[in-house]
This record gives sequence, structure tokens and C-alpha cells, in this order.
Amino acid sequence: MAQQPEPTYNSIIQPLLTDLYEITMAYAYWKSGKIDDYAVFDLFFRRNPFGGEFTVFAGLEECLKFLQRFHFSDSDIAYLKQTLPKGTEDEFFEFLRNIRLDHVTLYAMDEGTVAFPRVPLLRVEGPLVITQMLETTLLTLVNYASLITTNAARFRLAAGQDVSLLEFGLRRAQGPDGGLSASKYSYIGGFDGTSNVLAGKLFNIPVRGTHAHAFVTSFSGFAELEPKMIKSQNGNQEINLLDSALTWRKKLVPVFKVIESQVNDGELASFVSYAHAFPSGFLALIDTYDVVKSGLVNFCAVALALSEIGYRAIGIRLDSGDLAYLSIVTRQFFAKIGEKFSIPWFKDLTIVASNDINEETILSINEQGHEINCYGVGTHLVTCQKQPALGGVYKLVELNGMPRMKLSQDVEKVTLPGKKNVYRLLNKEGYALIDLMLKHNEPPPKPQEKVLCRHAFLESKRAYVYPHIVEPLYKVYWQDGKICQPLPDMQEMQNRVKESLNTLRPDIKRSLNPTPYKVSVSMDLFNFIHELWLENAPIGELS
Amino acid sequence: MAQQPEPTYNSIIQPLLTDLYEITMAYAYWKSGKIDDYAVFDLFFRRNPFGGEFTVFAGLEECLKFLQRFHFSDSDIAYLKQTLPKGTEDEFFEFLRNIRLDHVTLYAMDEGTVAFPRVPLLRVEGPLVITQMLETTLLTLVNYASLITTNAARFRLAAGQDVSLLEFGLRRAQGPDGGLSASKYSYIGGFDGTSNVLAGKLFNIPVRGTHAHAFVTSFSGFAELEPKMIKSQNGNQEINLLDSALTWRKKLVPVFKVIESQVNDGELASFVSYAHAFPSGFLALIDTYDVVKSGLVNFCAVALALSEIGYRAIGIRLDSGDLAYLSIVTRQFFAKIGEKFSIPWFKDLTIVASNDINEETILSINEQGHEINCYGVGTHLVTCQKQPALGGVYKLVELNGMPRMKLSQDVEKVTLPGKKNVYRLLNKEGYALIDLMLKHNEPPPKPQEKVLCRHAFLESKRAYVYPHIVEPLYKVYWQDGKICQPLPDMQEMQNRVKESLNTLRPDIKRSLNPTPYKVSVSMDLFNFIHELWLENAPIGELS
Repeated sequence: MAQQPEPTYNSIIQPLLTDLYEITMAYAYWKSGKIDDYAVFDLFFRRNPFGGEFTVFAGLEECLKFLQRFHFSDSDIAYLKQTLPKGTEDEFFEFLRNIRLDHVTLYAMDEGTVAFPRVPLLRVEGPLVITQMLETTLLTLVNYASLITTNAARFRLAAGQDVSLLEFGLRRAQGPDGGLSASKYSYIGGFDGTSNVLAGKLFNIPVRGTHAHAFVTSFSGFAELEPKMIKSQNGNQEINLLDSALTWRKKLVPVFKVIESQVNDGELASFVSYAHAFPSGFLALIDTYDVVKSGLVNFCAVALALSEIGYRAIGIRLDSGDLAYLSIVTRQFFAKIGEKFSIPWFKDLTIVASNDINEETILSINEQGHEINCYGVGTHLVTCQKQPALGGVYKLVELNGMPRMKLSQDVEKVTLPGKKNVYRLLNKEGYALIDLMLKHNEPPPKPQEKVLCRHAFLESKRAYVYPHIVEPLYKVYWQDGKICQPLPDMQEMQNRVKESLNTLRPDIKRSLNPTPYKVSVSMDLFNFIHELWLENAPIGELS
Repeated sequence: MAQQPEPTYNSIIQPLLTDLYEITMAYAYWKSGKIDDYAVFDLFFRRNPFGGEFTVFAGLEECLKFLQRFHFSDSDIAYLKQTLPKGTEDEFFEFLRNIRLDHVTLYAMDEGTVAFPRVPLLRVEGPLVITQMLETTLLTLVNYASLITTNAARFRLAAGQDVSLLEFGLRRAQGPDGGLSASKYSYIGGFDGTSNVLAGKLFNIPVRGTHAHAFVTSFSGFAELEPKMIKSQNGNQEINLLDSALTWRKKLVPVFKVIESQVNDGELASFVSYAHAFPSGFLALIDTYDVVKSGLVNFCAVALALSEIGYRAIGIRLDSGDLAYLSIVTRQFFAKIGEKFSIPWFKDLTIVASNDINEETILSINEQGHEINCYGVGTHLVTCQKQPALGGVYKLVELNGMPRMKLSQDVEKVTLPGKKNVYRLLNKEGYALIDLMLKHNEPPPKPQEKVLCRHAFLESKRAYVYPHIVEPLYKVYWQDGKICQPLPDMQEMQNRVKESLNTLRPDIKRSLNPTPYKVSVSMDLFNFIHELWLENAPIGELS
């Protein structure tokens, strides 16, 4: 059996991870002598996902690492030689081989910042032939990362801060590293951990998990349990856990009003076995047979047996049925048993719920009332079932200092020309009022001074805003061939998402009919756009 | 700039690419002394995706490579030691380190076979503690692969065999290797190629692409075109392509009934530039300004100029607007121009359509009538927007020779117990009639002999079937630590999907209200299931 290589999550993020047309265009530019043309591209999206009014920008670190490693290997060149049409000049492949990103500059919002339609997440400047080649890879790194981070953030908003959220989606993810990306960006978006062990190892995020139904059904009775003793927490005592749990079960039968012969013995055997392995981490899946008539009885029997020898059980997981109702019933039994046997912490045991959880399920469970402490979320989170793609685009906005503008019948598809800066204007309470785009050489708005904010296209929509705080949204993240900002770790990134979301008014973040956040342009930029627009008749032509 | 490592697509497919509970369960089994328990797991799904009545099984090769490389590295062990609760015994980590899959046997359908709900795609046998640990990884490898292959096959069925299909989805894929997997399995499912260059390199599938709107908008006029000569195809002649195209454009203006000043010069410059780079591969995106009044005129001008010096253009791409209508108009102009200038192949130029294509778009375009030769499909294909996850599950069906059956109120969730074999019964015309599951030790049905096929749960549903051909669905793919079947290449896999789909009646494959395909059990298996079911009262308990 071959030795497994160490996982190299980023090894596929390479210059060839791109659409062929990026390379054929590069060749055409190169061949046309446009090699010194200087381009500015904006990477932005046109609509917020999930019917919401915000998006969390993510993927920047991966983009920067991609730039850092950007290099066509010998085998890449060999592959391209056989793939591009015969007659492609050899000098072009030499050109590719020698590409350095020393003259590319990347401006970006901080990863984890809330972002809005049309406001560029990245601005990429540099030689046209090179910056064009970055399009597909940057899009693939930003689109899904931002989508899943936004999705996770929405789950967090729905669940509130007091409930834990765990990502359980690997088995339903789109490709093995769809799964890894999902784990990483769910954490950034506000989840507490993942079940994906490799994600834990690679990204240093907490890994959580208990056992599956198969574990329970693999025990059909006590005969399969080797008679074993377990040491007490302080090491002073040894007991037979099964015997103790059976004694407790007899005491519990009247509390649950069940007949003991109906409580499943295989299930108890599996719980005892699991508690043997993890006496300090006992969390049991209790819905294999019947939650109240079997799973809960068996769990409490083992938890009480553990408690006698100094171990505190963690709690239970529900994976089917009416989760809100079952959580309440479970909590009532926990409270009753805690009181009856004078174990105060028993009522606070953790209740985990899973089974096809989505944002709406959580909101509905909130409305019903519940006692759930933690959700395990899979498919809906990782595949973003509600909207599985963010439509980010990468558009040329300036070439050799001249603005470029794609006009379209469809105003939504018009791009905002030229090199722009963006400022976020906040009020005294720290709430974001509006994003304001300026031409890159305009002076920034000043705190406490009124500034005119205009809708990019609608003449009539405009307002004076008095910002209390003016936040520039861009930093230079890549210049002179180097990453030039410190990159936050996962925890810092998660905090940043939380803080950035805190600057949004609740009505912008709510699930039902959220208020749109305003994005505007300065007077100068407005005039610039509209002059360009009018300059060339007929409409439908490039400026 | 660091040298880029060679891409290692599979390096993340490792034992740690799993849910934590697989490992905690393994520890509990190990600790309970269940190390020699022998398990049989079935991997199956319960519902066909996309509202259809078939699924194409894919992902097997990745599963086998995963088994082949299965090994916990030193760093994996170190990571698990810090991740599992304190007190986890050291001997367990030694056990993990020494795991070999020599005693695991994997039965599977051939990759690319059409499959149906409840019929296991894989049967995995071996030590419980090891086979349980394979669950999440096998699911993640089979679920998405089968989903995207099925999706691609549905696009192929919708488009018919005469139209080319290209996958253009990388930028919208779920993670960089979501994109790679999409390219690979789209090809297997019936696509002709991808735009993803790395997928081309890694999987040896055709790569296709032309240029983007940015290429067109990067030219604002002729001034940006360096005056250059192009050699004729036979090398005997040199012309100025722009001059020639401009001459042709003047001749074309009356054909298109446009004023030449309204035809965009930047667009023509970009086409000339592209044709210089790829004189034998000229395919132009013609909708940047106006398809008929600009893009088509400029394309035809360049194509005719190329034709004069012996090059045959490929065609055009439409990326917006009414694709069916525009394709017909375009074809009419191609025919008219071909006739006017006596170039017979001109009418057959390729018309590529893209822009948010899904299965329904293709069906609707078919109904409208069209002249499209090729679709470029992105988001809907790669994210499987209609249903972004296949709900495959991995269930214990036998332990130490005893059947295991998860009973449930919900008949759909009941698992079929025991080790089973599956045969596909086909009629004289080669159409599949029914899949028949038998207990593993029953003799297989024989061609030309009637066999009773029963619904697994409904007493009343049964039928005698006279198969003309009896096809065993399983082969042993992994045994004694080795892959034990030859693995087909990509082209063979694609053929297999096509052939397997050919065995399905058209009404099963149709998009609207397809007929369900029948899946049945033998008399013996039926009795076995129902005895198990009845054996233990009350229902809701394990047999």
C-alpha cells in the first residue's frame, strides 16, 4: 500500500485551473503586441444570494496564495503546447514560463467584510495579458467562499448567539474539497466546528461528532458487550458500567412510564460501549428506536451510572422527528431526573438536533419554542441548496487609463467604468448607512461633513449623508510580487464577520423582506458615468 | 516566487477526509473488543435526483484509489491524538497506524451504469471497525460524482446526439475541485469537453474555449491593432487581414442592411486580432454590442477574409438574448452569404450558445426550433442547481452473518437487510425490464425462465418476468488489498454511460412525467425481510 502523500489543499489552485479562453485571449493579446497594455478589472457580484440583502466577502487568502504561487510549470507548458492550436508561437510559451506577478496590484476589502451588489470586492490592476488570465481562478475562489460564508452567517443569525452550530456536510458536498471549503468558510461565517477531520487538521478549527445509527444497530444485546470494568474519574473505584446502568434503568422505568422489556437492550449496550470509550465525552444519538420510550431511558441510565463515578455526560442528539417538541420533552425529563436524584447539572445537558436543517427550519423551531443547544447542519449549508452559486463577475473597467464600460439594455448588467475607491459611511451608533464609490483620484469623504450620495443610474435618487465614521473599504493586499497585509487566522476572520455584520441594521439582515442596503456613487463618478454613457450614440455601443 | 508543486488532485482523499464520528465509533468498537466483527454495508440512495427516474452511478474509480491509498500518516496520528479526548488509549493509535484493507471486499456496479433507488451501488464487507470508517469518504466520492454525471446525462438526453455540449462551469463551481470533479463527470455523463484547462490536463479530456467580452471591449478601434500581415494557409501569400476584412465589410453592409458607421470598429479590431492568433480556430463571441447589426457583420467580414487565404473559420458564440431566434437568424445570414459568395461550407459554420443554460432551456429551445450546434453550460450543470445533493447513504445490513435492518415508520427509510445480489433483467430488444435483488446465496435467475419479482414491501405488487438477458450487476472491485478489475479510461466510461442509458425505455428517461423503473426482490428475499419484520413486536424495534 502506497504511503499517502500529505494533503496539499492548495495544490490544484494553479494557473491552469482556469478557462481555456483566458489563455487563448492571452495569446491573442500577446500576438497583437498588447503586452504593455495596463488594465484595471473589478470583481463584483450583481445580486445578494438567498433572497437576502447582504453578502459576506470571503476567499481573499486563497486568492493571495494563488498569486504567490502563480507559475506555469514545465508540464503545464508541455500540456498547453499540445492543447493550443498548431502554429501557436513558441515565444509565447517562453512568455508564459517567465510570467511574474510583480506588476500586478490587488486592492481588496478585508476578508469577512459584508459586501453589496456592484461594489467591487477586488480591484486588480496590471498588464492586461496577465490580469486577464487571473479571471476564472479568482472567481472560483471568491464565488463559492463568499456564498458559503454568507450562508453560514445566515444560519448564525437565524440561530442566535446562544446556540452552537456544527457543520456536518462532507458526505453531501460537491467534491471532496467542496467539503473542505465548506468546513472552512462555515467556520468563518460563524459556525463553532465541523465534523470533517481533515478540515480540522488543515485549518485548525474545532472538530465535533458523536456516533451514527449504525453504531447503535451494530449491538443487538448485552451478549456482545465484553464484561468490563470502568475506573471512576478520580481513579479510586472500579465498577461494571452495564450493571450500574441496568440498576439505574430499573429506577427510571417508572419516571418514563415504560415497560422495561420495551426499552431496547442493543441500544443500551451501544451506549455503554460508547461511554466506556468516552466517559468524559458521552453524547448519544437517541432516536434509533423510540426517543422517549427507549433512547432517552437508556441515555439517562448510562449518564446516571457515569455520574456515580464522577463523570458528567455531555448530552444527546436527535436526528429525526419533531425536533422542537422532542427537545422540550427531553429537557423536561432531564429536569425531572436532575431533581429526583439531586443532580443539578442534569437539566442542562446538551441537546443537539440534526436532520435536514435549513435556515427556515431554525426560524420555525424558534417560533415553536425549543430546548435545542446545538444544530448539526449538512446538505443545506454546504451545497447552499437555496442558491448554489454566487454570480460574481470580473470586468474590465479601465485600459491604459481610459475607462471601459459595458453598456447593456439591462441596467443591472451595466458595469461602472474606471478605477474606483469605496468608502463605507457609518452613523454615530456604528451602523453602516451607505457605501459610496468615488473616482479613484477624488478626495475621500470626511467624517461629520455632508456628502452627496447618488444612485448610479437613477437621476432622482440622491441624498446628503452626514457620516460619523468614514471607513475606506480597500487595502492594497498584493503589490511588487508580495502579499502586503498580515493575514488573519480563522478565529480573527470569524470575529471580523461578526463585527462587520454588527454594523448592519437588523432590518437589513432579517430573513423575511429585508431592507436593501444603499450603494451609491459620488457626484463626480455619476457625471463621469453619464457623460460616458451619452458620449457615444447609439446606445448599445462602447464608449 | 515559489515553484508550484504538481497538482495532486487526489491528495486530499485520505482517511481523515471523514466525519469525526467514524473515528470515535472505531475507537468505541475497538475498545469493546468488536475488532473481529464482520460487517456488510450497502451504499445506496433512496430517490432519483432532478425529478427523474434514473441515476448514473459514478465515483467508483476515486473510491478504489482511496482504498488503495488508505493509510493514516504520522501527522494524521499526531493530529488525532490531540483531537480525541484525553484518555484515548495509545494502542488504538497503533491499531490505526497499522490498518490495512486486505480483509475488505468491495462489490460494485460498473461505474457509468444506470442505477435506481434502493439498489446498492456498492456493497462493502470486512471488519466492522474498518468498514465503518470508510462511510463518509465513500459517500462524498459517490454522491456528487453520481449527481453531476446524472445531470450531464440529462443535458445530453435533452440536447440529443447531434449537438455538442461543453462544460463552462469552473467559475461558479463549489470549490476549486468541485470544478474539477464537475469537468470530469460531465464528460463521463456525455459532454464533449470542458473549458477547464487543469481538468483537461489531469483527466485527458478535450478543452475548448474562445474569448470573452473583455477581449472585445479591450479594443476600442483600429489604432490599437498593430498593422500586421498574415500568411495564407499554403504559405504562398501574405495579406493585411484588417484591410481585407474592411473590404469584405463594405460588401456585407447591404446584405445585413446596416450603416457601416454603426458597426463597431473595436469589435472588428478584436476579431482581427483573434484571427491573427488563431487563423484555423476562429470562433468569435458576437453579442458584445449588437448581434445582427455589428457582431455578425464583423465576424463574416473576418471569416471571408480568412477564407480568401485558405482558412476556414469555426463559427460564432451567442451569450445573451433569444438564443433560438438569434441562431436561426444567424444561420440564415450564413446561408445567404455562403450562396452569394459561393462558399458552400459557410452555411454550416458552428453556432455556440451559452448564458445560464439548463435542461429546461434546452427543451424549450428544441420546441421553438433552432440552429444551435453547441451549448456551453455552466452554473446549472456544475452546481446541479435543480438539486445540489444526492442523498446517498451507507447502511449496515449484516453483522457476523446476522441480518441488520433499520425499521422505521417511514417505509422509504427501511433498509433491506442482509447481503444481496442484484440482477438486471432485459428483454429481447435489450431494454431493461426490472432490477431483481436476491439473497446472496440464491441461484441467479436464468434467461428465458420465468422468475417471480416482488415489490419489497407491498404484498400485492408482484409479477412473473421472462428475461431474455440476465445481467449480474456486481463485480468484485477490491479484494485482498488490491483493485481487481481493469479500470476504463474516460472515453470508455462515457461510452458505458451511453450504452447503459440505451437499455432504458425512452419513457423512463423523458423529462416530463417519466415512468418509474421497477426494482424488485426475489420470493426468498421478500420472505426473509418480512419474517424479520414480523419477528419482533412491537414494530419500531430492531429485529
